[in-house]
Amino acid sequence: MATIVFCSVNKTTQTTARRCLLAPLKRLVRAGESHSSPALLPGTRWLRFMSHGTAGRTAAGRTRRGALALTGAAAVTAAAVVAGVLANANHFQRAEMATKVSPAAEEREQEGDILERCREFMSPPVSDVAVLQERKGEMCTRMEMLIMQTQAEFCKALQEVDGGTFKVDRWQRKEGGGGISCVMQDGKVFEKAGVNVSVVFGHLTEEAAKQMRSRGKVLKGKDGKLPFCAMGVSSVIHPKNPHIPTVHFNYRYFEIEEEDGSKQWWFGGGTDLTPIYMNEEDAFHFHNTLKEACDKHHSQYYPDFKKWCDRYFYIKHRGETRGIGGIFFDDLDSPSQEEAFSFVKSCARTVVPCYLPIVYQHLNDSFTDEEKDWQQVRRGRYVEFNLVYDRGVKFGLATPGSRIESILMSLPLTARWEYMHEPAKGTREAGMLEVLRNPKEWV
Amino acid sequence: MATIVFCSVNKTTQTTARRCLLAPLKRLVRAGESHSSPALLPGTRWLRFMSHGTAGRTAAGRTRRGALALTGAAAVTAAAVVAGVLANANHFQRAEMATKVSPAAEEREQEGDILERCREFMSPPVSDVAVLQERKGEMCTRMEMLIMQTQAEFCKALQEVDGGTFKVDRWQRKEGGGGISCVMQDGKVFEKAGVNVSVVFGHLTEEAAKQMRSRGKVLKGKDGKLPFCAMGVSSVIHPKNPHIPTVHFNYRYFEIEEEDGSKQWWFGGGTDLTPIYMNEEDAFHFHNTLKEACDKHHSQYYPDFKKWCDRYFYIKHRGETRGIGGIFFDDLDSPSQEEAFSFVKSCARTVVPCYLPIVYQHLNDSFTDEEKDWQQVRRGRYVEFNLVYDRGVKFGLATPGSRIESILMSLPLTARWEYMHEPAKGTREAGMLEVLRNPKEWV
Repeated sequence: MATIVFCSVNKTTQTTARRCLLAPLKRLVRAGESHSSPALLPGTRWLRFMSHGTAGRTAAGRTRRGALALTGAAAVTAAAVVAGVLANANHFQRAEMATKVSPAAEEREQEGDILERCREFMSPPVSDVAVLQERKGEMCTRMEMLIMQTQAEFCKALQEVDGGTFKVDRWQRKEGGGGISCVMQDGKVFEKAGVNVSVVFGHLTEEAAKQMRSRGKVLKGKDGKLPFCAMGVSSVIHPKNPHIPTVHFNYRYFEIEEEDGSKQWWFGGGTDLTPIYMNEEDAFHFHNTLKEACDKHHSQYYPDFKKWCDRYFYIKHRGETRGIGGIFFDDLDSPSQEEAFSFVKSCARTVVPCYLPIVYQHLNDSFTDEEKDWQQVRRGRYVEFNLVYDRGVKFGLATPGSRIESILMSLPLTARWEYMHEPAKGTREAGMLEVLRNPKEWV
Repeated sequence: MATIVFCSVNKTTQTTARRCLLAPLKRLVRAGESHSSPALLPGTRWLRFMSHGTAGRTAAGRTRRGALALTGAAAVTAAAVVAGVLANANHFQRAEMATKVSPAAEEREQEGDILERCREFMSPPVSDVAVLQERKGEMCTRMEMLIMQTQAEFCKALQEVDGGTFKVDRWQRKEGGGGISCVMQDGKVFEKAGVNVSVVFGHLTEEAAKQMRSRGKVLKGKDGKLPFCAMGVSSVIHPKNPHIPTVHFNYRYFEIEEEDGSKQWWFGGGTDLTPIYMNEEDAFHFHNTLKEACDKHHSQYYPDFKKWCDRYFYIKHRGETRGIGGIFFDDLDSPSQEEAFSFVKSCARTVVPCYLPIVYQHLNDSFTDEEKDWQQVRRGRYVEFNLVYDRGVKFGLATPGSRIESILMSLPLTARWEYMHEPAKGTREAGMLEVLRNPKEWV
């Protein structure tokens, strides 16, 4: 039976206290006990499955630190179990549990065998595995492996809590590349959950290349054409229960080859939360988990990217943000490719620990018809942002050969537009709007 | 008690036959009988109310032709009664009934007293009545009266069939002008019905003036500023029953004053239908009614504006039109202002006769949950068109001081996005899609 070790990453004065809280849960997971609580069962089931799989690999000597390495998703499921048992455990604890497994997973990404890692994906990667193995050290390969891994970890964590299964579609782009769309619709917990990977390549005109980059650098191509490669993982999750927020994340990489063979590259991405009802603890947990991931790389990342996020996800015609933000960045090409990738990797690894504990926390919250209606109105605003402002959606819809279903899978299953909808003063709905109209600092 | 006369406009060989069909209904309306059929009751009730009102005016000698002049809406209610009784009366008959009352109404528009006409509106007009009276002959006044009248006629006809009441909001634009929004939400028949009038004025930059006009004429302003006036009536009606199509119309007028005091003006507009399920009779009735209105002015109007409509209401990323079209035109400034206005007036008068008979025809159609789902998916496409492509919406959302609720009242109350939704071959849903992918000629 597998043993779980929560390696401490950030040594704070609270570490010991948190360990005490976690200890009984570790024992519980070790013993492989089953529980009748609906919040616990899925997590436990999946943990077992993962344990067997990983135990096999441990025997093959592919993990270090003398402990069982879990994928991020499995770790988060463990975190979710914790959240389920200790309904009162605060978010700080949840965040800590979640981030603790990153180092081992990161290590595996660096050392892992491509073929072995592909076995955990939702589908074979977009690029041919032989090509990936051949170009193992190149950033395009490393990023494709990361986005495939992020997709798999997140999908599995969501399947675990929902009980449903993702529909996996592989699609090809005539002009070069393709993608893998994973969608779960009308599940028990999730109204619509989409996790999409795309890897596209081909040639860009100089003008198009300039537009792709937010700072609009002038790039010189051979006969005006620039070979490019763009890839990313993106996801939007719309739960049924109005007390479970919607989450969105997207991590992407661009590479353009200039006339002289030199490569321009940059990363972009972000993770943001859209609650229907304000919950300060959730907001703190979400932002704090992101902040911790950012702080490992640069102390300015979180404050700068948090502001950027509030600015980007702004529904101008409504005078409100889409949600309570998170982080957003683009055009990241410093201090080095290695360090930028490492930061993006930290962010991608933070997706599950940011979100899943919040899902488990509210899994069994009851709700009224009125609360469901308010959720549907907020879903309408989500659609407004995505169709009117989102640069990715606009770019996608305008690009010939785009896979529309993958671009628009971010739209909720259902939405509502009520004329002149304005919540009464003093209600929780009005409180939510107040926050959206005046973005706050959460950490 | 009022007498109703259906004046014949188009003398076709079918006129006598149609008169025979209508005769018993005329008697029925004359006698003011009440009926237990739900399709009949509302029409009858409202007709009585209108009859009293109009009878008073007849006594005051304000109508001609020796017959009681009805507003277009009242006439259409009569037409609707006809449609209700004669479920098998064909659409050609319905169209004829509807257009027959136009001349009297047109006449009244030309001769009528401003104050008297305002009494029939949903609200006092946007401009001060004293100002309208003072500038009675000017196109801005005549058009404002027409759009107010169109709003009132359409709203009353919809209230009649629904049994609900429009919420009327007057709003002011800080920069000049304002509007009147009429919205009925979650009614018995209509999920969401919005009929909006706006009259705005102020100063435009030369660049903005150029952009407002689809042909992009260069206009010279005093110190680069051009006084302008823009007004229009627009409406989107989303019924609950998936067998009743959604309708949209919009008629607008622009006027810009150049440096030398000369005025540039043009009209735009259109009416189009978005069925959820294809019904060839409805399509014929709708298009034929529009064609008859167009043909009175120019034989090329219908064929040209029908094509323009199919081109404009095209959801490019889906490769399908929004609905089965109708007519659409912009930048109309010929052959003369008087003739262009007369054409727009004919179009505006055709809104109720185009749509209401179709509503009454399907009022009591039963439907399944699956049919309702398909309606919701099509509503999603409607939202996509409106938020991604519609020039009016885009212009409105980007214009400071716009009233967002009036712009977005065109969005349905509820919509749905299913991932990879594709109806099975041979179903009615697939048949509808086929038509949207390959626009047809209906007349």
